[in-house]
Amino acid sequence: MNDNRPPERAVTLKDLASELGLHSSTVSRILHSGTDVARSAASPGTAERVRALAREMGYSPDPQATSLRTRRTHLLGVIVPRLSDLVLAIMYEGIEEAAAEANYSTFVMNSRDDQELQRRKTEIMLARRVDGMIFGDAHLDGSLLAELSDRGVPFVLMNRRVPGYPSATCDDVRGGELVADHLWSSGHRTVSVIAGEPYASTAVDRVAGFVRRWRELGGDIPDSAVVWSGFDTVGGRIAAEKILKNDARRPTALFAVNDFAAIGAMGAVRSQGLQVGQDMALVGYNDTSLAAQLPISLSSVHSPMLEIGRSAVQLLLRVLNGEQAESIRLEPTLCVRESSA
Amino acid sequence: MNDNRPPERAVTLKDLASELGLHSSTVSRILHSGTDVARSAASPGTAERVRALAREMGYSPDPQATSLRTRRTHLLGVIVPRLSDLVLAIMYEGIEEAAAEANYSTFVMNSRDDQELQRRKTEIMLARRVDGMIFGDAHLDGSLLAELSDRGVPFVLMNRRVPGYPSATCDDVRGGELVADHLWSSGHRTVSVIAGEPYASTAVDRVAGFVRRWRELGGDIPDSAVVWSGFDTVGGRIAAEKILKNDARRPTALFAVNDFAAIGAMGAVRSQGLQVGQDMALVGYNDTSLAAQLPISLSSVHSPMLEIGRSAVQLLLRVLNGEQAESIRLEPTLCVRESSA
Repeated sequence: MNDNRPPERAVTLKDLASELGLHSSTVSRILHSGTDVARSAASPGTAERVRALAREMGYSPDPQATSLRTRRTHLLGVIVPRLSDLVLAIMYEGIEEAAAEANYSTFVMNSRDDQELQRRKTEIMLARRVDGMIFGDAHLDGSLLAELSDRGVPFVLMNRRVPGYPSATCDDVRGGELVADHLWSSGHRTVSVIAGEPYASTAVDRVAGFVRRWRELGGDIPDSAVVWSGFDTVGGRIAAEKILKNDARRPTALFAVNDFAAIGAMGAVRSQGLQVGQDMALVGYNDTSLAAQLPISLSSVHSPMLEIGRSAVQLLLRVLNGEQAESIRLEPTLCVRESSA
Repeated sequence: MNDNRPPERAVTLKDLASELGLHSSTVSRILHSGTDVARSAASPGTAERVRALAREMGYSPDPQATSLRTRRTHLLGVIVPRLSDLVLAIMYEGIEEAAAEANYSTFVMNSRDDQELQRRKTEIMLARRVDGMIFGDAHLDGSLLAELSDRGVPFVLMNRRVPGYPSATCDDVRGGELVADHLWSSGHRTVSVIAGEPYASTAVDRVAGFVRRWRELGGDIPDSAVVWSGFDTVGGRIAAEKILKNDARRPTALFAVNDFAAIGAMGAVRSQGLQVGQDMALVGYNDTSLAAQLPISLSSVHSPMLEIGRSAVQLLLRVLNGEQAESIRLEPTLCVRESSA
């Protein structure tokens, strides 16, 4: 034991690690992870030695790097790309509901899909001592999640998934397949996709499900018919304009991976003097409350948005309790309306 | 001095107040308010006595009841009714932008216009030591704001105003007048209003401006033609169904005080076999990004939503600096489109 350590200096992870000849990330995983992470970090004997020394030396974990299971704040942090995306706002309402039922409160911040902001806002939330985090803005290509996992921060993903982390999402591959089946059986043979952002699993999975199924059905869809875009009205409008400008390949149907992008596409179709539903079929995704009420009602893949938010909370509570946390995929259904009838 | 007080008990405001024979709310205002409130609460001599005793007794303020101007957290709390109302989500983006420029971060929570939740979430935010609050969910008939003001909590209102408190809003009375002028000059003489919630100044002011101007122009509009409703798609649909069911008074135009309510009304009009723009004029409010893209584009009063959010931050920073904070009313403009052309 390091007894000449000045008494006013707090014991750190490094102190414990050097005392035991271990790497401090190993010590961190043993002391801060309630899940399988702790069990995979070291043998039961080593883990017990670490815990015993931590007690002996009076180690107290860094409040910024950990959620203290022993003195929970009952506060959960939520980060989404933008709350002006109605889909995320509705999922957040599901989070709030389920959290309140479990006697938790929640905060939410926008990261605008900017990786620097994701990082900064996460640190602000952790400094506010949230017990755990729900990320609705996970990037398939980001490094933040791996770092947080190493630090033992409890979190789950929502809406978008990344392999290796627990997530609550719609089965987006299945959703894309439903649209392909519908447009094919309605007789369409030339289709284009307004695809969303390639760093989001929602976009990638919906497109992959659609394209794979389309080809299985015998359809032809060149890669150039998949136009990546923003998820909002403006993004959908720009992508549709690009598709409609191509005289060499004029589709009879569009699949937009988001209702707002679909509404933007409606504007672009109208600007060309065409009518949605008659001259151009259109299918959106999520079935937001707007879809059914539009002057030409919008076909859309219904995703259980509120339930996805609720599931994310249930999953995070399991992580916080050190229980098994299996990812949750909720089933989509297709609502066919005037825009593609 | 109360020297037999057990040393482990913290000194409270009540201890200071009883020691000095003052009311504890007076002591609170002196110690916790950086603004004119402190100066109006007591004479300079009394204030100095309070401060001296607080130092002597080792008083430390309750973090839940105060924002410590001396050690700012650079965190602002925001409460809105629902982020699934796109208008609030956009205003919140304006808040985030302006806050970041001033080196502040922001959190947001939903109160769902429930006064109990407003109160509870405010306390959670204050416990997280925000420097000040922005309320987007003020009720004209609530008591929370008066209580927070008494406690010296710095706050401003956004989107909705309540007389007596600084607010950043659209000039909603003017917005209602613009719609009345437009529908009157288009030849309409029988109109109904989808009015929103009577506890919100946005609803009350837009309706008041519309009705007053309509009557000034010589129009007739009975109180029964103003149907209070939810601000969302469902609320607008229900209100429009009620209006269209009344065979005794069939309007030729509808004014909905919110774009989402207007989209709900579009659904109700369509269900009656009528076409918006041809059989029934319709005007919304806020000019959200959807309005221009709809298959029948929606006339709407453009309110500078992002700028309202930004103004709320600027106003709150003035409050935090103890400067004069005059309410801000931003000017609306009317965008006429197919739905009422």
